[in-house]
Amino acid sequence: MSKTYFDHVATNPLRPDVFDAMMPYFKEEFGNPLNMYDLGLRARDAIEWARTEVASLINAKPSTIVFTSSGAESNNFALRGIALARQSQGKHLIVSKVEHHSILNSARFLEKSGFVVTWMPVDKNGLIDPEVVRKSITDETTLISVTHASSEIGTIEPLREIAKIAKERNIIFHADGVATVGNIPVDVKELGVDLLSMSAHQFYGPKGAGALYIKEGTRIVPLIYGGIQEGGRRAGTENVPAIVGMGKAAELAKKELHQRIQHCERLRDKIIEGMLKIPKVYLTGHPNNRLPHHASFVVEFIEGEAMLLMLSMKGIYAASGSACSSKALKASPILLSIGIPSSLAQGSIVFSVGMENTDEDVAYFLREFRPIIERLREMSPFGKGWGDGDADEKCYVGGA
Amino acid sequence: MSKTYFDHVATNPLRPDVFDAMMPYFKEEFGNPLNMYDLGLRARDAIEWARTEVASLINAKPSTIVFTSSGAESNNFALRGIALARQSQGKHLIVSKVEHHSILNSARFLEKSGFVVTWMPVDKNGLIDPEVVRKSITDETTLISVTHASSEIGTIEPLREIAKIAKERNIIFHADGVATVGNIPVDVKELGVDLLSMSAHQFYGPKGAGALYIKEGTRIVPLIYGGIQEGGRRAGTENVPAIVGMGKAAELAKKELHQRIQHCERLRDKIIEGMLKIPKVYLTGHPNNRLPHHASFVVEFIEGEAMLLMLSMKGIYAASGSACSSKALKASPILLSIGIPSSLAQGSIVFSVGMENTDEDVAYFLREFRPIIERLREMSPFGKGWGDGDADEKCYVGGA
Repeated sequence: MSKTYFDHVATNPLRPDVFDAMMPYFKEEFGNPLNMYDLGLRARDAIEWARTEVASLINAKPSTIVFTSSGAESNNFALRGIALARQSQGKHLIVSKVEHHSILNSARFLEKSGFVVTWMPVDKNGLIDPEVVRKSITDETTLISVTHASSEIGTIEPLREIAKIAKERNIIFHADGVATVGNIPVDVKELGVDLLSMSAHQFYGPKGAGALYIKEGTRIVPLIYGGIQEGGRRAGTENVPAIVGMGKAAELAKKELHQRIQHCERLRDKIIEGMLKIPKVYLTGHPNNRLPHHASFVVEFIEGEAMLLMLSMKGIYAASGSACSSKALKASPILLSIGIPSSLAQGSIVFSVGMENTDEDVAYFLREFRPIIERLREMSPFGKGWGDGDADEKCYVGGA
Repeated sequence: MSKTYFDHVATNPLRPDVFDAMMPYFKEEFGNPLNMYDLGLRARDAIEWARTEVASLINAKPSTIVFTSSGAESNNFALRGIALARQSQGKHLIVSKVEHHSILNSARFLEKSGFVVTWMPVDKNGLIDPEVVRKSITDETTLISVTHASSEIGTIEPLREIAKIAKERNIIFHADGVATVGNIPVDVKELGVDLLSMSAHQFYGPKGAGALYIKEGTRIVPLIYGGIQEGGRRAGTENVPAIVGMGKAAELAKKELHQRIQHCERLRDKIIEGMLKIPKVYLTGHPNNRLPHHASFVVEFIEGEAMLLMLSMKGIYAASGSACSSKALKASPILLSIGIPSSLAQGSIVFSVGMENTDEDVAYFLREFRPIIERLREMSPFGKGWGDGDADEKCYVGGA
């Protein structure tokens, strides 16, 4: 049975040429980049090369890139680092309701530490209204944090408009670009963001490498204290191979971005088209303004986990909600925030495609999925008679 | 020119069998450990295997091990996580003066946040006196943090005695085991520590993997918030290959520990013996109770950096002070804390050997180093006439 991997929002396979670039740093080039001798200097040069590539991918200067161990670390660093650095100016933050758990839970931690957080609502497509952001600003607001795109519903947020509002009021603007960098064009200057989080394994780079873009002149308190690595902003011996891998993945992403988008959009649209032919299946997130590789749905009368298991038995890998959601959490807060009832949110399923996926993968998946849904609905206590008479299907969020 | 790598405290070369264990997780086994399907489950199993190996190396239960990205992250997590979790009980911490920068700077951050830190002095050998720790305890003390051994001076601290004192007073005891785990026997139960930091690349594992042992029942506030990884104690997609590498390195360390100690001690003692024959060279740290692979000195009238550069031209790699010390920092605080005058502390040099080093390496080094010192002293404005008449050489710290 060949494998059909439709879970690129969880993680990407590592590109072979990225692995090849990392290899020497696992072997002869094992030096600590802080060493003064040639072995260390070559490791340092490799990191600086990677910094240039990552910076170039987002149209930034190399000196604005701080390497971290993950997107989650970048998000924690950004939110808490800015909140603390600016606390003498105010203790109010604005955070959207469609953020990743690393932002949500960092913001909750800050709430417990005496900060006030305003949680931005979204519309039924998952979009933040910049005017609502504007109205939430107080004299105490120091930071606005918004995801560039949610990996659960795929909606791309209007960063440019929010950035303008933040700038007018001298508020720092952080965007979580984990789902977008390497997948759609991201230009920090054009977007006007002050900080941007990134994760290498979201664009065919290795796990263990993330980065935070920090605009020049932005004061930030470190998350990890220690030595002078990363200009004193992030301590710990650098994970040289992973950083080099992130650099190589950035180089490739820049080169191939439009090709990737075209390829993924075509497959994504086929998935959406096929899925919406199945009764009581609804698209979640924005119908058009969404990640090119991302198709997310809720399926009535079925639980996401049951679908995932049945699909995996056919060699098809997908996600239900966020991979980082708590297993204890019954309904995704992001789906609830776009107005999906909690019973329906249980039937969440996300397909995210990549460069190695083919038209045959999509055809195979569509062929296999319909009988799975039918079988699960037969088993479901809620599913009995689900098709009876209800021709007026409700489209929760932008579905066909 | 063959290379003589005497800088194992900076980083270790990756063991080929460790790299081989990591390989599949860069290739076909790229799954996110949170995924419910087989690809994810195998990644999860690999992490749990690694957890068992790391736990076994320090005689702990697997459930007490939290993986991090580095020793520095583990140290930040331990110090700040415990300080915050226990702040309602008190805001006084006891930290030694011979800690790594990741502890020193975390403690300074806590000082700025309203905590009070007592900095434990050490004697001329770098040893902490447990009785001084006892006397520093107040009703507000919640945490004592002491390095197991300093990578700058090699001295092994009396953890057992300090642990007993901490326990009597219901104070949490953290030890920084970055320099010891994998290099000497470390048994958390025998030592009586509540938390212990570890770093994989200090025992032939990969960069990008660290761990924190947290005794069962110890409340701690996360450093990196987000998803449910590591039992909700450390968020971010797991760096599966690096964690597997740490597991394999732990397995090998346990198996080979006594062989490693014997091999390294023998080479270390040859280095010490040869070095102390050179006039005005003094051993730093404890003469016997020190890391088996660690020989540290101060050389009068010469700067450490000059020695490192001259040695590196001969293919010999060593360190001066801590690799993580600020380049702006003129004298190592650890050397000052053992009473070395700041002018002499400039002449710090550390040789740390490993399994790949040979007797020939040591012989080559000793042959090359003496003329280097002589040449540098001739060039030094302070070095003129350094040998004149002063037969009564002063041994600053336990030297011969």
